[in-house]
Amino acid sequence: MIGAGPGDPELLTLKAARALFEADVVLVDDLVDRRALAHVRPDARIIEVGKRGGCRINSRASTPQAFIEKLMVRLARRGATVARLKGGDPFVFGRGGEELLALRAASVEAEVVPGVTAGLAAPAALGIPVTHRDAARGVTLLTGHTHDGSGPDWRALRAAGSTLVIYMGMARLRALVVDMLAAGYPADTPACAVQNATLPGQQEVVAPLAGLPYAVAAAGLASPAIVVIGDVVRMASVKACAERAQRVA
Amino acid sequence: MIGAGPGDPELLTLKAARALFEADVVLVDDLVDRRALAHVRPDARIIEVGKRGGCRINSRASTPQAFIEKLMVRLARRGATVARLKGGDPFVFGRGGEELLALRAASVEAEVVPGVTAGLAAPAALGIPVTHRDAARGVTLLTGHTHDGSGPDWRALRAAGSTLVIYMGMARLRALVVDMLAAGYPADTPACAVQNATLPGQQEVVAPLAGLPYAVAAAGLASPAIVVIGDVVRMASVKACAERAQRVA
Repeated sequence: MIGAGPGDPELLTLKAARALFEADVVLVDDLVDRRALAHVRPDARIIEVGKRGGCRINSRASTPQAFIEKLMVRLARRGATVARLKGGDPFVFGRGGEELLALRAASVEAEVVPGVTAGLAAPAALGIPVTHRDAARGVTLLTGHTHDGSGPDWRALRAAGSTLVIYMGMARLRALVVDMLAAGYPADTPACAVQNATLPGQQEVVAPLAGLPYAVAAAGLASPAIVVIGDVVRMASVKACAERAQRVA
Repeated sequence: MIGAGPGDPELLTLKAARALFEADVVLVDDLVDRRALAHVRPDARIIEVGKRGGCRINSRASTPQAFIEKLMVRLARRGATVARLKGGDPFVFGRGGEELLALRAASVEAEVVPGVTAGLAAPAALGIPVTHRDAARGVTLLTGHTHDGSGPDWRALRAAGSTLVIYMGMARLRALVVDMLAAGYPADTPACAVQNATLPGQQEVVAPLAGLPYAVAAAGLASPAIVVIGDVVRMASVKACAERAQRVA
C-alpha cells in the first residue's frame, strides 16, 4: 500500500519507487500522476482501479471499493507481489485503512509505504507553514465529504485554534463556508484553495473565508483541491504565486 | 528547505535526494538519520546545526534558531546553493516557517520540498489509519511543547472528534494525560507512543490513555516520540508489532 505523494512524481519516496519496481501487479488510482508508473517494471501488469479508470465493474452489487479489495486479495493469493498505489498518503482520507483491514481479514501480508499527503504539500507549495507557532496551535486535516452526511463541529474546531486543511471540500465549499461563519469564524479569516498542488498546472486562490467560494468560482478552480483556513494563510508567498503565473503565461 | 521524512532514509522523496545532490552546503538537524546524507555530493560541505550537533554557537545573545537563519542567509548571499535538511516535514512543527520568513526578509529565494511527517508515518508504521471513517472525523497534529506554556484546549479537541497526534509530548506526557482526562477523555481511550518510527530501532507502546505514561515508562520509551490518541489506535496491528519484536530479539 503505497502513497504516491501529492502530485509531482518527484515527491514519491525512494521506498515507493523501489516497491513499485518490485511489484508484479500495480493497482493505481485516477488521481495518481501517470509519470509515477515509470518505476514499474515493463513486465508488470498495471490495473487502473479509479472510478474514472479503465477497470470495468461487472457486478452491480459490488462497490468499486469492495471490488478493489477483492482483487488485491485474489492477486496476492495467486502469489503476486501487489502494489496498491494511492494519491497522497494511503492513510489520510485515502481509504487505505479499509483496504488494509480487508487484507488483514484475508490473512494477506501487507506493508504501508507512507507518502506526502496533499493536505500538507499544498500549503507548503504556497510557502504556508501550517503550524507556525505565532499563528496556529496545530493543524487539523478533515474532509468536506463525510460518511454520514453530518458536518464537522466547527465551533469545537474554532476553539481548538488549529489551522484547518479540508480535503474534498470543493463540491460543498459554499455550504462549508456558511456553516463556518455561523459557528463564529470571522468573515476575514485568511483562506485559500489549491488545485493540482505541486504540479505544473497548480492553481490557487487566496481570499478571506467569506469570499472564498466566489474567488474559487471566478478562478474556475475545481475538484480535487485542498482548502486551507487559518491565520497561517497570511504567510502565503504572493511572490511565489506571481512567479508561477508568469511562467505559465 | 527539505523534509527528510520520519526516519527511514528510504522515505526521503526523489526530489529531496536530487536537491541534496545539487547543494553546495547542507545544514542538517540532529534528528535526521545520517544515511540521508548519502545523496550529498562529496565536494559539498555539511554543517550540523542541531542542538546536540557539532556546530558551536559563540554569541550568547544568539539563539540557535537565529544563528541558523543568519548562516543560511550568509551562505546564500555568497552564491551557494544551500540545502536545509530537517526531520519529517519542514512545515509541521519544524520551525521551517520561521526560517522561510527569515529568508524572505533577506530576499533569498527559497523552495520547500515537503517530506513525510513523523506524525503520520508513525501510526502508519503500526497499521493505524488515522482518518478511518468509522473511527475519526479527521486528524489533528499538535505539539505537547507550546510556545507560551499554555496547553491545548482539550475539551474543544475532544468535541471535534479527530484523532490526536502529539509531537514532542514525551517530556510532559503525564501532565498532558492528566489534562486530557480532566477534559473528559475516557480513561480507556486507545493510545500509543512510537519512538524511532520507521527505523530498525522502532519501539512502540499501545495502552489505554490513563495508563500510557506508566506503559511508556515501563518500556523505557523516550523523546523524540509520537503519541497517537483516538479510537483508530484500536486498529494497530498487534501482529506487525509482535513480528518486529521477534526480529529484534
